[in-house]
Amino acid sequence: MIYFDNAATSLPKPPTVGSAVLAAINTFGGAGRGGHSASLAATRCIFQARKAVAGLLGSEAGRTAFAANATESLNIAISGLLTRADHAITTVLEHNSVLRPLYKLRSQGMGLSIIGIDPKGNLNYDEFHRALRPNSKAVICTHASNLTGALTNLPFIADFCQANGLLLIVDASQTAGVFPIEADKLGIDVVCFTGHKGLLGPQGTGGLCIRKGLAVMPLKVGGSGIHSYSETHPEGMPEALEAGTANAHGIAGLLAGVEYILASDIDTLRNRELALAKLFRQGISTISGVRIYGNPDMPHAPIVTLNIGSLDSGAAGDRLATRYDICVRTGAHCAPLAHLALGTQEQGAVRFSFSSFNTEEEIQTGIRAVAEIAAEWGQR
Amino acid sequence: MIYFDNAATSLPKPPTVGSAVLAAINTFGGAGRGGHSASLAATRCIFQARKAVAGLLGSEAGRTAFAANATESLNIAISGLLTRADHAITTVLEHNSVLRPLYKLRSQGMGLSIIGIDPKGNLNYDEFHRALRPNSKAVICTHASNLTGALTNLPFIADFCQANGLLLIVDASQTAGVFPIEADKLGIDVVCFTGHKGLLGPQGTGGLCIRKGLAVMPLKVGGSGIHSYSETHPEGMPEALEAGTANAHGIAGLLAGVEYILASDIDTLRNRELALAKLFRQGISTISGVRIYGNPDMPHAPIVTLNIGSLDSGAAGDRLATRYDICVRTGAHCAPLAHLALGTQEQGAVRFSFSSFNTEEEIQTGIRAVAEIAAEWGQR
Repeated sequence: MIYFDNAATSLPKPPTVGSAVLAAINTFGGAGRGGHSASLAATRCIFQARKAVAGLLGSEAGRTAFAANATESLNIAISGLLTRADHAITTVLEHNSVLRPLYKLRSQGMGLSIIGIDPKGNLNYDEFHRALRPNSKAVICTHASNLTGALTNLPFIADFCQANGLLLIVDASQTAGVFPIEADKLGIDVVCFTGHKGLLGPQGTGGLCIRKGLAVMPLKVGGSGIHSYSETHPEGMPEALEAGTANAHGIAGLLAGVEYILASDIDTLRNRELALAKLFRQGISTISGVRIYGNPDMPHAPIVTLNIGSLDSGAAGDRLATRYDICVRTGAHCAPLAHLALGTQEQGAVRFSFSSFNTEEEIQTGIRAVAEIAAEWGQR
Repeated sequence: MIYFDNAATSLPKPPTVGSAVLAAINTFGGAGRGGHSASLAATRCIFQARKAVAGLLGSEAGRTAFAANATESLNIAISGLLTRADHAITTVLEHNSVLRPLYKLRSQGMGLSIIGIDPKGNLNYDEFHRALRPNSKAVICTHASNLTGALTNLPFIADFCQANGLLLIVDASQTAGVFPIEADKLGIDVVCFTGHKGLLGPQGTGGLCIRKGLAVMPLKVGGSGIHSYSETHPEGMPEALEAGTANAHGIAGLLAGVEYILASDIDTLRNRELALAKLFRQGISTISGVRIYGNPDMPHAPIVTLNIGSLDSGAAGDRLATRYDICVRTGAHCAPLAHLALGTQEQGAVRFSFSSFNTEEEIQTGIRAVAEIAAEWGQR
């Protein structure tokens, strides 16, 4: 199997990820739920993981709460900071994990403006100022499109937010663990991350880092292991945004993933991934009938998205899977507005997303596969 | 280490749980997120797990949604079925994962009645009828107290709900995987479960089974892998109550846990656990200064909760941990009203909770430890 679907979930994981989870399953009690050795082992692991993740994202352990995935983090941030009386600004590059929570609030009366992209997939940054309204409260935007890999200009958007008194909520699903994120330095209010993509951890992990002093209303309330006689959930971070027994087993794996990234050097890993993406893009760029989306001259995550003639993206993905055992993601990628903007809502698109575990040989096989499917399509 | 804290999180797990998670981490793509082999492996595993869990709880795979833990399930059920215009009935036996979501709604205007207990910890069932109001919408109650282990009379409460047109939401955190639950047969509307206790699965797993035809408003919305162009989250179960990449790695372990229970026979496992609990209870019942809570003559989960003289429960737990390497849970157990009703809010209580992996030898060590701490306390 050749796995080019790392933007969906990374595979393989570093071997230490699985072994850390296995060890945790066989030794951990409930984190923050007792003073015995099994419980303390889980509690310590979670603290170390908060510290490690916060370090990569430019935040602090005490302001980093864990969640089940980035979708949960985004739901917490959006529903916990915005009300029906507000206006929010987002972009067509967003995943449904951003759009649907915003649409839900819009259906209750919240105003929503959506920044567009040019034909190459770059955000129209001049639209931000025009979108401002007196009740504008926040910008919610992805750090990189999960469709094209295009990075958004976070320093620009952060400056815009600061100049206009807006909160900035960033969806780092495609970038956490791949690009260093300087949340506090840039003045980002909330960074939402998932653990099972670039951070190389298990599924069922993710979370959010909150700016110092910012209070976010919790989405879930319940047991927290502290202040049990209070009728309300604790307000201090990180407990404020966590409820119930933490996924310490998964978080042990997330810590191992982050430790792998730190030991390997995040820049080294990303440069390798970007080099593999470039090799692939160059290899397919001369194939007749292949259309590549996005702008390789702009900063981007290690993603290359394409279509072959007018071949349905799902059919192309099936051929890649059944003939070459190549795993890619086709269809809509939960990014409806980006597809509409690029005109690919009917055909979908074929997304190749790389990790540092991919090899040049795999890339060459991928290029050959695209070439053969394109040649067949050309001769139909 | 002697682990008597299975009501917090079960330990050890069957060896197949860790190995299933490890295999999943090394082979799974994103479930429901693509047609390639890695993604399909995750999708299949999740379906099998839905089927297995639903079977134990008396529901169906298609009406079983996964969540991060029982707290999330309870938040989904409570916030998704009740509004500020309603009245709800609950009990003093509830965990903060039930109470705090209800208090949150109460602070917005919802009515709330709380059924009390007698000095032995049994619910005052005659209070249910008196609690009824014209706008009563639901009863939310635990299947077993996490403090004393006392089982609630679900058939009585289910009959009461049906006779009065109320929804019944059951917190099965302490019973799923230990007692068979016949959700559909009893007419329970929602069963909320956690995966990491009696179901013997990893932390980060749990979920809820919904009665056929009942629509629950989702707590989180986002990507679902289907209907990507819809502005609203899919309404069909189980996708309606799940958003973002599922924790397929953890769910693979949950499936292994349930398969272990099915292969071992749930009645055999429970009878062993109850026999161990009885052995412990009998062993400590004659120790001077030891007070046991709850009523051993009524149905109960394999939990024995006690105090030693007026020794602070935390101090007793510390002695058990440091001198005997025995893990128990002390303090408030996130069950404030039950402690208030039993008069143990200051002292807390020392909870011993057993699994089928415990041995009679461990029980004897536990009895000896309690006897020695009690003797020391008596001589102070």
